[in-house]
Amino acid sequence: MGECKGKIVLALGGNALQDSKGPATAEAQLDVVKRTCDYIIQLVEKGYEIAIVHGNGPQVGRILMASETAKDVTPAMPFDVCGVMSQGYIGYHIQQALRSALRHKVREIPVVTLVTQMVVDPEDPAFQNPTKPIGSFYSEEEAKKLAAEKGYVMKEDSGRGWRRVVPSPLPLRIVEIDTVKRLWDSTIVITAGGGGIPVVELPDGTLEGIAAVIDKDFAAELLAEQVDADVLMILTEVEKVSINFNKPNQQELSEITIEEAERYIAEGHFAPGSMLPKVQAAIKFVKANPGKRAIITSLFKAIDALEGKTGTAIIG
Amino acid sequence: MGECKGKIVLALGGNALQDSKGPATAEAQLDVVKRTCDYIIQLVEKGYEIAIVHGNGPQVGRILMASETAKDVTPAMPFDVCGVMSQGYIGYHIQQALRSALRHKVREIPVVTLVTQMVVDPEDPAFQNPTKPIGSFYSEEEAKKLAAEKGYVMKEDSGRGWRRVVPSPLPLRIVEIDTVKRLWDSTIVITAGGGGIPVVELPDGTLEGIAAVIDKDFAAELLAEQVDADVLMILTEVEKVSINFNKPNQQELSEITIEEAERYIAEGHFAPGSMLPKVQAAIKFVKANPGKRAIITSLFKAIDALEGKTGTAIIG
Repeated sequence: MGECKGKIVLALGGNALQDSKGPATAEAQLDVVKRTCDYIIQLVEKGYEIAIVHGNGPQVGRILMASETAKDVTPAMPFDVCGVMSQGYIGYHIQQALRSALRHKVREIPVVTLVTQMVVDPEDPAFQNPTKPIGSFYSEEEAKKLAAEKGYVMKEDSGRGWRRVVPSPLPLRIVEIDTVKRLWDSTIVITAGGGGIPVVELPDGTLEGIAAVIDKDFAAELLAEQVDADVLMILTEVEKVSINFNKPNQQELSEITIEEAERYIAEGHFAPGSMLPKVQAAIKFVKANPGKRAIITSLFKAIDALEGKTGTAIIG
Repeated sequence: MGECKGKIVLALGGNALQDSKGPATAEAQLDVVKRTCDYIIQLVEKGYEIAIVHGNGPQVGRILMASETAKDVTPAMPFDVCGVMSQGYIGYHIQQALRSALRHKVREIPVVTLVTQMVVDPEDPAFQNPTKPIGSFYSEEEAKKLAAEKGYVMKEDSGRGWRRVVPSPLPLRIVEIDTVKRLWDSTIVITAGGGGIPVVELPDGTLEGIAAVIDKDFAAELLAEQVDADVLMILTEVEKVSINFNKPNQQELSEITIEEAERYIAEGHFAPGSMLPKVQAAIKFVKANPGKRAIITSLFKAIDALEGKTGTAIIG
């Protein structure tokens, strides 16, 4: 992609893909993705090489819900297949919109989406404590039937009914990493969508899809390590990470060390499933790559954050 | 992939992915795909380099049906998105199963699925005469309502009810072809699944997904031309193409010239939507590449057909 100013792995949060207050149609998603791509191309324009990892929470939830709702018409799909469908759905929109935006405003660069599997450890402690609710709500009776029939773990979800919960193990290995590396110099690759499709490696080396959810920030961190990225950039709804979030003494953070970040985590400043995994992924990247940066900021401030004008940078 | 004996684009028919008499579950598909991959790896073992194009008719139909059935629970997805979901679903299974089979019986070779868009001509005459039924059956009243509200073309389908029909235009250009070419030497690429996601190119170069179905045999043919393949190999249920099919004077064909193939087409020997597009795609490839071969045979006879022992070869 010409002279490279730095390699960035971008982790795109849900707000870069859908407007949580808008309709959940494909048309609405494509509109949001087009706007997102107008910001992403600024990074390419500035000379950065990028790869994209996106979340998939609402999308895979809806695909699973549609599949479960229609189960008497056509067999319901297992969760790994719903996940890969969401990789296709979201990747297609980003790939199409990014190509157009690049072509109009920068130059023609190939953009592709790779179906991406992610090896997880079957001994990961997450499997002992499934926490991620997926799919439809059920009555207690239906939930117990599903638990008995299919072995699902069902939990009551904040008074709204019962839902299946799946574990959220850590990503160990991106199965398709060789291809990402091979394409890096020439192509923008959308990979490990939704954190990647979780698979376990059987003793004979065969991979098998499982029902689990991998955090996309940890997936992006692993990718950033493996492609030797200069920056892990986690894009979310806020411009900066805060401590004492939503309290009178809320304080935005600009640049913090690993030690500071770890202290804030220990003090409980970051919400699990929200800011916590982002800060954890950022720490992991900077620990593994002393001298490099992880940045957490909003999509709209990506360039400014790279230039140190805003965002929260985690440094070694 | 080592010393190359020849480059083959494989077009995989429905029977390589699902047993039409078995259940339409993901688990059943994965079982069939695993068996299919045990045959595909024989080609790699013999020293051929391959890329894979697969059909998606039953799968995209079911994804659309699930989506339409669940439309009051979550918005129905447009047909292009259903198509890309099917690319993810089928590609994932092939990618996973092929990797395992290669690893056990040949050697480790990367296998990836690319989300693939296919440019079609908005002036293609197919748009004047949509023929491909997709999705659920409706009553005449519902059908007329859908036609009025959404502009769908609805047709009565052999006494079973009304269905939406979409055009089947010819593929013009594989948007992600550069990536396929770049990966060819090192990687087995699954691409243009279901014929590719049909897109039209707007005057400003923007791509836009449309509701259409591209024949996967024509997509494979275009790919074979563009990667300069030695053989276009169309795998289907029968070992050889026949004239007077299912008649007392049925005759299997071993090697036919373009002229013979065109005469048989003119005489109406091949069923539209079934053997006809396969023979047409084969002719197109051999016309564009004099001296090269297109082969139509069954998955189980691929090696024998390559060695000239069976199958139907179309030659220049």
